[in-house]
Amino acid sequence: MNDNPLDHLIKLLGSLPGLGNRSARRIALHLLSKRGSLMVPLADALKDTAENIKNCNICNTLDLSDPCNICRDPKRDKRQICVVAQVSDVWAIERTGAFKGTYHVLGGVLCALDGIGPEDLGLGKLKLRLEETENREEQEVILALSATVDGQSTAHYIADMLMPLGIKVSKLAHGMPVGGELDYLDDGTITTALRSRA
Amino acid sequence: MNDNPLDHLIKLLGSLPGLGNRSARRIALHLLSKRGSLMVPLADALKDTAENIKNCNICNTLDLSDPCNICRDPKRDKRQICVVAQVSDVWAIERTGAFKGTYHVLGGVLCALDGIGPEDLGLGKLKLRLEETENREEQEVILALSATVDGQSTAHYIADMLMPLGIKVSKLAHGMPVGGELDYLDDGTITTALRSRA
Repeated sequence: MNDNPLDHLIKLLGSLPGLGNRSARRIALHLLSKRGSLMVPLADALKDTAENIKNCNICNTLDLSDPCNICRDPKRDKRQICVVAQVSDVWAIERTGAFKGTYHVLGGVLCALDGIGPEDLGLGKLKLRLEETENREEQEVILALSATVDGQSTAHYIADMLMPLGIKVSKLAHGMPVGGELDYLDDGTITTALRSRA
Repeated sequence: MNDNPLDHLIKLLGSLPGLGNRSARRIALHLLSKRGSLMVPLADALKDTAENIKNCNICNTLDLSDPCNICRDPKRDKRQICVVAQVSDVWAIERTGAFKGTYHVLGGVLCALDGIGPEDLGLGKLKLRLEETENREEQEVILALSATVDGQSTAHYIADMLMPLGIKVSKLAHGMPVGGELDYLDDGTITTALRSRA
């Protein structure tokens, strides 16, 4: 194969998360068989999204407008700020419809191995946002971070950071997933579910 | 989530082979975090490929030029035509460097269940191509189709179709994969390898 646009496309596709060389080749061939109905629309959608989707300057999520729809919505409860690692976590929580507060997207979690420190996550921005709120005693920060070592150490770090501000900090409950069978749960989850029994 | 370009992008990405909703969301977020270095170049590569990559009118493969580089290459042996199902099969054979003839890409295999008949694969075009060759007794058609039911019935169909033309038809050998351990091979492969022993 010579240096042509198809090779370049396959290389770019193969660099996407979850895709390798083989799946990139398969996708490229699929796209070429549907140039008008899929390939060109996909190129347009990429350009359109790259140009029009912005990061919200308040909560850091992605939306057409800045501030985002959630931050601008007067019906959302500004006294609850749910701290998540990724924009996809916002989407996951929004799909449940169970949360009516606002968000703060960190863009990752603390990770000593990958060299991700507090300044990389913009934790100063979160602190500033909370320092600027008026009724701090009514404010609640919900740490909705992954139940991994990095996620939990990030949660600890944020809880420590917010301690002097006198803001209520809560965490997502750990326990059995709904619909989960006890027999298939790992030891850590069973222990936590037992200890947090209600 | 409202009707915005990001949703549209995720929908298009999710329709690609091997990707679902979750992987499409993950890829979209990855792209948005690398707008300049990956997202826009990917959009350009898609447009560029859609506009410049053509199907070769002789062998049906994809290339920048029509006829393709392989069909135009005077060093390739026109007396050997390797019949494959997909363009990716051409690439797989080309990577080995073991074949110096030309190709014919069917674009699929016969499949009664999916309603794919001989006219869908352009088998008439293959027949025409072979009828137009000058020294038919020197011509060889190598059927390099998958060792599946559909692949093998397609191979049988083509062999039958070419019989009246008096062209030599051969098939890829079946047997043990190189590096394969006997213990891990399926019964069909062992039986075939035994019968075709040399």
